[in-house]
Amino acid sequence: MIEVDHLISGGRILVMDEKDTVIQNGTIAVKGEYIIAVGEKETIENQYVSREILNAAGFLVMPGLINCHTHAPMTFFRGLADDLELMDWLHNYIFPAEAAFVNREFSYMGSLLACAEMIKSGTTTFCDMYIFEDEVARAAKKAGMRCRIGEVLFDFPSPNAKTPAEGIKYTETLIATWADDPLIHIAVEPHSLYTCSESLLKDAKHLADEYGIPLAFHYLETKTEREQLCKDKGVDTPTSFLKKMDCLNERLIAFHCVWMEDDDMRMFSDHGCKIVHNPESNMKLASGVAPVPQMLAAGVTVGLGTDGCASNNNLDMFQEMDTAAKLHKVVHYDPTVMDARTVVRMATCDGAKALCFDKIIGSLTPGKKADIILIDLNRPHLTPLYNEYSHIVYAVNGTDVDTVFINGNVVMKNRTLLTINESEIIDMVRETSQKIKSGMNIT
Amino acid sequence: MIEVDHLISGGRILVMDEKDTVIQNGTIAVKGEYIIAVGEKETIENQYVSREILNAAGFLVMPGLINCHTHAPMTFFRGLADDLELMDWLHNYIFPAEAAFVNREFSYMGSLLACAEMIKSGTTTFCDMYIFEDEVARAAKKAGMRCRIGEVLFDFPSPNAKTPAEGIKYTETLIATWADDPLIHIAVEPHSLYTCSESLLKDAKHLADEYGIPLAFHYLETKTEREQLCKDKGVDTPTSFLKKMDCLNERLIAFHCVWMEDDDMRMFSDHGCKIVHNPESNMKLASGVAPVPQMLAAGVTVGLGTDGCASNNNLDMFQEMDTAAKLHKVVHYDPTVMDARTVVRMATCDGAKALCFDKIIGSLTPGKKADIILIDLNRPHLTPLYNEYSHIVYAVNGTDVDTVFINGNVVMKNRTLLTINESEIIDMVRETSQKIKSGMNIT
Repeated sequence: MIEVDHLISGGRILVMDEKDTVIQNGTIAVKGEYIIAVGEKETIENQYVSREILNAAGFLVMPGLINCHTHAPMTFFRGLADDLELMDWLHNYIFPAEAAFVNREFSYMGSLLACAEMIKSGTTTFCDMYIFEDEVARAAKKAGMRCRIGEVLFDFPSPNAKTPAEGIKYTETLIATWADDPLIHIAVEPHSLYTCSESLLKDAKHLADEYGIPLAFHYLETKTEREQLCKDKGVDTPTSFLKKMDCLNERLIAFHCVWMEDDDMRMFSDHGCKIVHNPESNMKLASGVAPVPQMLAAGVTVGLGTDGCASNNNLDMFQEMDTAAKLHKVVHYDPTVMDARTVVRMATCDGAKALCFDKIIGSLTPGKKADIILIDLNRPHLTPLYNEYSHIVYAVNGTDVDTVFINGNVVMKNRTLLTINESEIIDMVRETSQKIKSGMNIT
Repeated sequence: MIEVDHLISGGRILVMDEKDTVIQNGTIAVKGEYIIAVGEKETIENQYVSREILNAAGFLVMPGLINCHTHAPMTFFRGLADDLELMDWLHNYIFPAEAAFVNREFSYMGSLLACAEMIKSGTTTFCDMYIFEDEVARAAKKAGMRCRIGEVLFDFPSPNAKTPAEGIKYTETLIATWADDPLIHIAVEPHSLYTCSESLLKDAKHLADEYGIPLAFHYLETKTEREQLCKDKGVDTPTSFLKKMDCLNERLIAFHCVWMEDDDMRMFSDHGCKIVHNPESNMKLASGVAPVPQMLAAGVTVGLGTDGCASNNNLDMFQEMDTAAKLHKVVHYDPTVMDARTVVRMATCDGAKALCFDKIIGSLTPGKKADIILIDLNRPHLTPLYNEYSHIVYAVNGTDVDTVFINGNVVMKNRTLLTINESEIIDMVRETSQKIKSGMNIT
């Protein structure tokens, strides 16, 4: 008998491997950071013993969800300004609020609140872009969450970096600070093509290549953005500009891609670039509907993200899956597109691939890091159960998540966070939000 | 001092009256079935006393949500068949399953499960159409829920009625059985124009007129339905056929109305007919997007519904509000349409109006029945709070509801159902679902 650190015993396991394995009465053995065995309960428990046995009978056990695009500190702006024209929202609310209130403490506290929300809704990994990302990393580390983070880079000054060069420098420091960390991974994150000069984009790309890490940015989120890019760069296909800049490779992560056309998708597919779909944000800001079924048909890897709390307004990936599945059906007048299995893949194994994490997470297979969530099926809205994928997409919501493992550690048990003092962070954010409220003249 | 049965004390109260009153620190006095006073905590508590004082500090207090269209017993088919073509779904799954499994017990148990789910997600009133509706009424009565229900009527036999005449007769018995019941209200519910002969529609309308109760049916859910109707009835506007049949009045409730055009809306507006919008079902079945902003602009009252669990797959009205707000923004490329306040109205006061219940429910004003929900704001995903309407639509989900009053009675307290044995009904439905699973050859 082999001794392990945890046995997650007798659950209904959704492995999310290539064969779409579902084990009706299965056990997972976890040792250190890793999943070391997964299989039928009896088989596994005849080989492995543990002092920590978690009875998972009545639970659905699946890989932790991967939120491929968010701005964690923006939890502070949840509901600050809704139902507004994009430019009104940005210029009269979000930008002034950021200029006035974003500092190190804001990014740390906002991120810690985001981590609390994400863990409580089954997300174990997130990809982030904001200001003072070292604070986001510190919050994720405190929460025990896995992440891919990068300081936002653009041509104008931010509360953190006065110049683009300072932003690049800060990113280099991030890379050095978190090298070899088991949870914190860095990306180089220029904000977008319309806010970054070609010179900044070149520097960002150079840095990403130097360290072999992803280059990630917002891309083709609005129709205006596409039109302006085509005009400014003198191209018909914005992606041909990216090609000219030598940006197309497997480490390119493009957020949104609402206004992609066939040629863009084909080039993304040819070069193995990744896309992150954020349906709820794109709906709320009225940006449009990304052609995701076409992207998938073109063979592009697509992950799923919530975007930040100012444009969603929550970080619940179960709701995001539900919306992703339904939105494309109605837009294409075809109820068979974006079936539940495809959407669950986007939130797990395909999301892992999108963030260049597919070697370490995304499925419950031996050798991967133990990022595992347990969903309590003993709820009226989850009764009866005919199909696990369908339940996850169309019926489960974030609060059905009972227990969460990240990197082999239990970070939530029976809905109690073990790494974050939930009421303390709620109180702290509320206090600061009062200042934002008065500062922004919100009654 | 006046003695009352309950004081809901010190909450953040969303009254949902004409003036959009929000009371930051308010108290509600409930006596018998009724709300008798609402106002500032100090003012109310200087006038009213109660042995039952519920401390609502930290809670958002609002009218119970009104689910204007569902098929409660279909909880049994939640996730039975998803991501399929409409006709495949109907003819190879739903209809055979109904023919084989629907009986009195099915309708009772399925509805009791639906009531458990609805109460636990803040719905206090629902409008139902299915087979054996007396069982739905019995379940609602047991759960303590308010409803508007009607037996489904069509030209072919159902497990309950061999002929349309039997269906009409059954509806008459429903009316007699539940006359004067404080919670159970009846409607006459022909399934749709494409499944009911003109003679059945005439009989149904006659019965509704005789008792002064609503006539309710599915209407213009799919494009095919509209085209077929226009062809069969020899009209350009399907609603002109309804006018010819003298069906247009304030007691007409039309579910879906996805394929309404300007003339239909104008006629609905002119005659005070009501519409129920079911965005998630329309998306999942790829029926289309109802022109709701245009309906509202035309002055038609629009309520919100989840539809049944075979096409959604849950009964969470908070999620439905979120989807309703976002869907129309992206379809119209306008983030200002369907603002949060409008959507909350659809789920409360406008829903009440749609079901002809506006005299008794829909707002927290003195004289209305006490259907009240308390939302626990002490959650990471509900922090911070700048705007109550925005929170309800974009951030709250059903499981944030802590306590529910219906008709002056507490039916859920601290998320424990007081009228339904939750684990018993879950077990019973699971057992029957095993038979459905084997009968339908689902592996």
